[in-house]
Amino acid sequence: MRTGFPLPPGSTIGIFGSGQLGRMLALAAARLGLKTHIFAPTGIDSPAAQVAHSYTDAEYDDLNTVKFFTENCDALTYEFENVPAQTAMFAAECKPLHPSANCLTVAQDRLTEKQFISNEAGVPVAPFEAVENKFDLKRGLRRLGGTGVLKTRRFGYDGKGQVIIRDEAEIEAAWEKLGDYSLILEAFIPFTREVSIVCARGVDGHMAAYPLVENVHQNHILHTSTAPAPRDLGSAKDLAQNIMQALDYVGVMATEFFELEDGSLIVNEIAPRVHNSGHWTQDAGCTDQFEQHIRAVAGWPLGNPNPKHGVVMTNLIGEDVNDWQNLAREENTFLHLYGKKEARSGRKMGHINRIVP
Amino acid sequence: MRTGFPLPPGSTIGIFGSGQLGRMLALAAARLGLKTHIFAPTGIDSPAAQVAHSYTDAEYDDLNTVKFFTENCDALTYEFENVPAQTAMFAAECKPLHPSANCLTVAQDRLTEKQFISNEAGVPVAPFEAVENKFDLKRGLRRLGGTGVLKTRRFGYDGKGQVIIRDEAEIEAAWEKLGDYSLILEAFIPFTREVSIVCARGVDGHMAAYPLVENVHQNHILHTSTAPAPRDLGSAKDLAQNIMQALDYVGVMATEFFELEDGSLIVNEIAPRVHNSGHWTQDAGCTDQFEQHIRAVAGWPLGNPNPKHGVVMTNLIGEDVNDWQNLAREENTFLHLYGKKEARSGRKMGHINRIVP
Repeated sequence: MRTGFPLPPGSTIGIFGSGQLGRMLALAAARLGLKTHIFAPTGIDSPAAQVAHSYTDAEYDDLNTVKFFTENCDALTYEFENVPAQTAMFAAECKPLHPSANCLTVAQDRLTEKQFISNEAGVPVAPFEAVENKFDLKRGLRRLGGTGVLKTRRFGYDGKGQVIIRDEAEIEAAWEKLGDYSLILEAFIPFTREVSIVCARGVDGHMAAYPLVENVHQNHILHTSTAPAPRDLGSAKDLAQNIMQALDYVGVMATEFFELEDGSLIVNEIAPRVHNSGHWTQDAGCTDQFEQHIRAVAGWPLGNPNPKHGVVMTNLIGEDVNDWQNLAREENTFLHLYGKKEARSGRKMGHINRIVP
Repeated sequence: MRTGFPLPPGSTIGIFGSGQLGRMLALAAARLGLKTHIFAPTGIDSPAAQVAHSYTDAEYDDLNTVKFFTENCDALTYEFENVPAQTAMFAAECKPLHPSANCLTVAQDRLTEKQFISNEAGVPVAPFEAVENKFDLKRGLRRLGGTGVLKTRRFGYDGKGQVIIRDEAEIEAAWEKLGDYSLILEAFIPFTREVSIVCARGVDGHMAAYPLVENVHQNHILHTSTAPAPRDLGSAKDLAQNIMQALDYVGVMATEFFELEDGSLIVNEIAPRVHNSGHWTQDAGCTDQFEQHIRAVAGWPLGNPNPKHGVVMTNLIGEDVNDWQNLAREENTFLHLYGKKEARSGRKMGHINRIVP
């Protein structure tokens, strides 16, 4: 095994998770002459395992296998935030893990995340209330003005694990649905648009921010990201970087914001990883977010985050992917497919980047 | 196995050869959701095998293993022209092979290649003479005006297997060195510069030409390619496409030219594959040559070959690669490394693409 940063070409980056984000990280690492080793329980034909140099198939809480895995890697990262915190902490004792286990712990629990962003980083979020029981929910709802969004603290994504509550009469139904989980109630904030920013921070604390992006969701799933966002808000970069400083973050992180009617921003959530709203960077003429993350994790200097032209990224969800032949024919469109077999409803199968002329 | 063109995402492209060209083909295929299976005798840690979905380790003339390999692929191609012709013909009987075995046969023998380009495609080449014995050489030298370049007909690359003969007295020494091989004597033509063009041709006969590129060699190895070439010569595209039509070529092909003092072009050689002088396409904002080749081989529509900006590609040869930290720090430079362990003298370790502002 090689030691010391920056990791020289030929070194191996271990990645927890074998979805499309791991796949695109593996492809970016290969471009730089770095190897990747995927750890996941999803089989050799899962998106990242298909293209990585090595693959270990095991459950994330199988620490014996995690130990063996880390012995074959020079540095570690993850492509999703639901790696068990215990696994991350154990792995970090074996080899450098970026972003740190602490970043993961903060980001994988909506309550911890909101508390950290608000209290430690001093960055605004929607008002929120911890909910352990029906009484908490009732009181929280009253405090937030009678409406709110009830969410599971962990494992929610793409709108899963959340219920909107419009008045007290809806408490029973919401509790029926989510009462078995640890919950957070968030104020229902009217916003004018959703924007996000992807930033990287190196091991030396150097930062590189991509421009602000405007996101449109459909059925709670990201549909398009337009980069740069039509109206920039200089403050997004500062807010995101405040959070990253407070976390002593290393790697790429996405920060999602709601823009309120007065033009101010509150953080919706952070993702301690490469992010769907950063896929546009692959075809914008700058260092893409995947290479940027690999550079940070390997202790390399960060690349240039400034795009040469605008891009609109559109996700291919479920059967959208069946249109691949027409998309492949579009003149200024770059097609990215993830190697998933079944185009199930709601499943992210690929994306396209359309260059803005 | 899937059948019929275009091959849908999830199909497998078999590639003979496991060097850097195969590696970059595999990475481009993965982006499109296509799998790759590498066939080579160079081991699982060779550049393409590292990143492909599957790898078969066998000698190129092991036809039993070739048969097994083709059964696991939906279409076939190669990353270098020294695949044995017999292997290519055998493989083509099992699965679609592009470019065809005939293209390979023509291109892997300098004499056949020159005869084809000159006689079948009607495209100018330097005057040449077949050399089977010392008498042929003597007579050929006289016919070409007393000087020439004696080359092996097969397996020459990067200046290997050739000797310049300046007068009859040098015949003995040249024969001593190369007399064991089948040879060709080519006229020694004074030229003002070396240019090349990479073009693609689809299964439907549709063509896509990248702009002309100017190449500078050092020690017989490509050093830089500047794209687009400072002075374009419209004729290069036509000449290259004439050759491709005559070959009924499918895939990406590079045509290398010498530009003579009067501005006319003669073909130096063709490469029936992706080519070092097309690496700049990876960071030029167009469909890159690797994806373009995969598209052609899979029967997909060809992508857009028109760059958004200029690029200078510089090869990293041998110990050049040790400068990777400084290169990674350059603002508008994209670094590509091939995963080779030993930076031996003359070995292509990677390349950089510098964006022209």
